[in-house]
Amino acid sequence: MVERVDTPAPIVLVDVMQDNIDRMQGFAAQHNFDVRPHVKTHKCVEIGRRQIAAGAVGITAGNVGEAEVFAAAGFDDIFLAYPVWPAGTKGNRIRRLARSTRLRVGVDNAAAIEALADAMKDEPDRLQIVVEVDCGARRSGAPPEAAGDLALAARKRGLVPVGVFTYPGHGSSGRDARERAAQDQDAALTTAVRSLAGVGITAEVVSAGSTPTVEFSTSGVITEIRPGEYVFGDLNNTRLGACTDDQIALFVAATVVSDWVPDQVILDAGTKALSREGSNERGYGRVPGTKAVLSRLNEYHGFLAVPGGEFRPGVGTVVPVVPNHVCPIVVNFEELIVTDSAGTSLRRWPVDARGFLS
Amino acid sequence: MVERVDTPAPIVLVDVMQDNIDRMQGFAAQHNFDVRPHVKTHKCVEIGRRQIAAGAVGITAGNVGEAEVFAAAGFDDIFLAYPVWPAGTKGNRIRRLARSTRLRVGVDNAAAIEALADAMKDEPDRLQIVVEVDCGARRSGAPPEAAGDLALAARKRGLVPVGVFTYPGHGSSGRDARERAAQDQDAALTTAVRSLAGVGITAEVVSAGSTPTVEFSTSGVITEIRPGEYVFGDLNNTRLGACTDDQIALFVAATVVSDWVPDQVILDAGTKALSREGSNERGYGRVPGTKAVLSRLNEYHGFLAVPGGEFRPGVGTVVPVVPNHVCPIVVNFEELIVTDSAGTSLRRWPVDARGFLS
Repeated sequence: MVERVDTPAPIVLVDVMQDNIDRMQGFAAQHNFDVRPHVKTHKCVEIGRRQIAAGAVGITAGNVGEAEVFAAAGFDDIFLAYPVWPAGTKGNRIRRLARSTRLRVGVDNAAAIEALADAMKDEPDRLQIVVEVDCGARRSGAPPEAAGDLALAARKRGLVPVGVFTYPGHGSSGRDARERAAQDQDAALTTAVRSLAGVGITAEVVSAGSTPTVEFSTSGVITEIRPGEYVFGDLNNTRLGACTDDQIALFVAATVVSDWVPDQVILDAGTKALSREGSNERGYGRVPGTKAVLSRLNEYHGFLAVPGGEFRPGVGTVVPVVPNHVCPIVVNFEELIVTDSAGTSLRRWPVDARGFLS
Repeated sequence: MVERVDTPAPIVLVDVMQDNIDRMQGFAAQHNFDVRPHVKTHKCVEIGRRQIAAGAVGITAGNVGEAEVFAAAGFDDIFLAYPVWPAGTKGNRIRRLARSTRLRVGVDNAAAIEALADAMKDEPDRLQIVVEVDCGARRSGAPPEAAGDLALAARKRGLVPVGVFTYPGHGSSGRDARERAAQDQDAALTTAVRSLAGVGITAEVVSAGSTPTVEFSTSGVITEIRPGEYVFGDLNNTRLGACTDDQIALFVAATVVSDWVPDQVILDAGTKALSREGSNERGYGRVPGTKAVLSRLNEYHGFLAVPGGEFRPGVGTVVPVVPNHVCPIVVNFEELIVTDSAGTSLRRWPVDARGFLS
C-alpha cells in the first residue's frame, strides 16, 4: 500500500495513534488530570478532533498562527502556552481570537501584560492569563514566587488570571532525569499556586508538560497536562522509556535512490523531510527491525548506513524511517498519508497549521 | 521598518542579494561557465527570475515538485540534479514536465534508466539524461569510469544522454578542503567525459557544484556550475571564506519574549523557524555585530546567549538572526519579507516551491 505513495512522505498508522490518544486519556483520568494536547506535534485539525473526541478539554498552541487555524476549524478552548509578545498584527489577532473562543495566553513578565492589556482595548476581560514559571529548564518562565505579582498586575489591567504553567524541559535525558524534573515541576507549581493565593487569586489552572515527564506528575497540585509527542511517539521517546517501539505511529517513507557505496544506500529523505534532529554519532533516524541508521543527512539525501549486509535494500525500494524527534516532521509536508497497521486504506489529512509560525 | 513584521520572519535584503547574483554571474563569465542556480535555497519564483535575468541559462531543482512549480511559472530549462526514481506518480509527472520544458534528470544506475525510459513511453527522446558521478563525497553518483556505460544504456532506450555532473560535498571544511574537493571534482568530471567519449557520446554538459568550491573550479572541463547558497550566504559560508559578513542577504527577524535568566534572553525563533542546523557548541545562529549566539533551540524558543552584558535586548525587541545554513530556512515560511539595506520598502515574495518534497 505505502509503496504507492510518492516519497518522501509522512505515514501515520491511525490505529496506533488512536491507541496512544486513548492511553493518555486513560492515564489522565486515573490521576484526575485534564488533557490539553499540544498541537505543535501534528498541526492537523483531524487529529485535534480525535483528541477532543477522546476527552481532551481543549488544545495547547505554540503561537498565534496555530491558535487561529484551530479556532477557525471550530476549536473553542485554546491555551497559547507561550510568553507571547503582541507586536505587529499579533495584538489585533489575539483580540479577534479572544472574541470567538476561550483563549488563554501565557505571560512571564510585566511588560507583556501591559502590551496584552493594551491590545485587548476595552475587552481585557475576554483574555485569560496563565503565568509561566520556571521549574529548572532555564528557558522562559518567571521565578515561581513572582507568579502572584504578575497575576495581580494582569488583574489590575482587567485581564483574567486563571492560573500557572511550566515546562520541565530539563527532563529529557533518562528515567531519573524525567522523575527529578517532574518533582521540580510539582515544587515550582506548588510555590506558584501559593504565590497567587498570597495576592488573593485562586489558580484554577495548574498546567504541566510534557510527554516524557507526565507519568511522574502525581503530587496532586496539577490540574492539566499538555503532552504533544505522545500522539505519534519517536525514537527519542523510546530512548527515554516514554513509549515503546510498537507505539510509534508516524514514520517517513523514503525510496532508495543510489547504492554505490559499500555498507550504505542513499534515501530520498534528507533534512528537508526529516529536519536535522540527531547527530552524526547518534544518527538521524532508523529503519525499524533492522540495524540501518541514517548516519548523515544532506537536504535531499539521507545516508543510510547498512552494516553487515543483512539488510541492503535495492534502488527503488521504499523503506520506513522512524525519526528521532517527531515534532519537526509534519511541518515539512503538506499532508499526512494515513493508513493503519494492516495497510487497509490510504487517506490524506492536511497539515493545516503548517507554516503559521508567527 | 522590519520592527513592524510579525516574528519570526525571514527578511531578504534585495540589494545585497542582487549583488550576490551579479557577482556570481560575473565570475562565471570570466571562466566561461554557464550558471544554473539551485533553487532549493530560495524556492522562490521571483528570485529564480532575477537569476535568469542576470544571465543564468536555466535552473537546477532537487526534486520533481520543485521542477513542476518552476515549470508552471514559465521556467523552460530545468535540470533535476538528482538520481530520481520514477515510482508512484513521479513517472507520469516527469513525462508531463518533459513535454513542456527542456528537462534534464540525473541518473547514477541502470535500473533508474530503465524505469525512466518506461515512464517516458513512446517519447523517450524528450528526456535528457545527465549521468551523476562521485568525486569523493561518497554520496550518490557512479564511479566516473562507469559514466559511459550508463550514458550508452540511456541512449539504447531512446533517452538523450547529454553529459555528466557531480557534487563535491566533501569540500565543506575550510579553504584547503574546498580546493582539494574542487580538484577531485575536475578529475572525476574529466574521467567521466572520457568515459562518455569512449562509447561515442559527447558530453555537452559538464556540470559542477557548489557555492564553496566554485572559485577553485578552473580546469577547463566544466561547462556549468550549480551554486545555490550564494544567493543569500550564511554563517557556514563566511566560516569557509566563501562569502563575507556584508554579503549575507537573509536573516530571521525574531522577538525577545523572555529575559529571566542571566546572560540569556529567549527569542521566538526555534527549530521550526531556523531548523536545527549547528550544535550546542557552535551555536545555531548569531545576531550580527554582537557576541550574541543562539546556544540552544527548542521548537518555538531560541536560547540567545548574551555574555558580558554589552548587548542584552529587552522583552519586545526585534533582533536579526543570521543562520548557520540558509537552505533549510525558507521552507519554514510561507513568504519572504523583502526589503533593502536602507529599509526603504517592504514587499512579500511567496516561497512558491515550499512543501513540494516528492
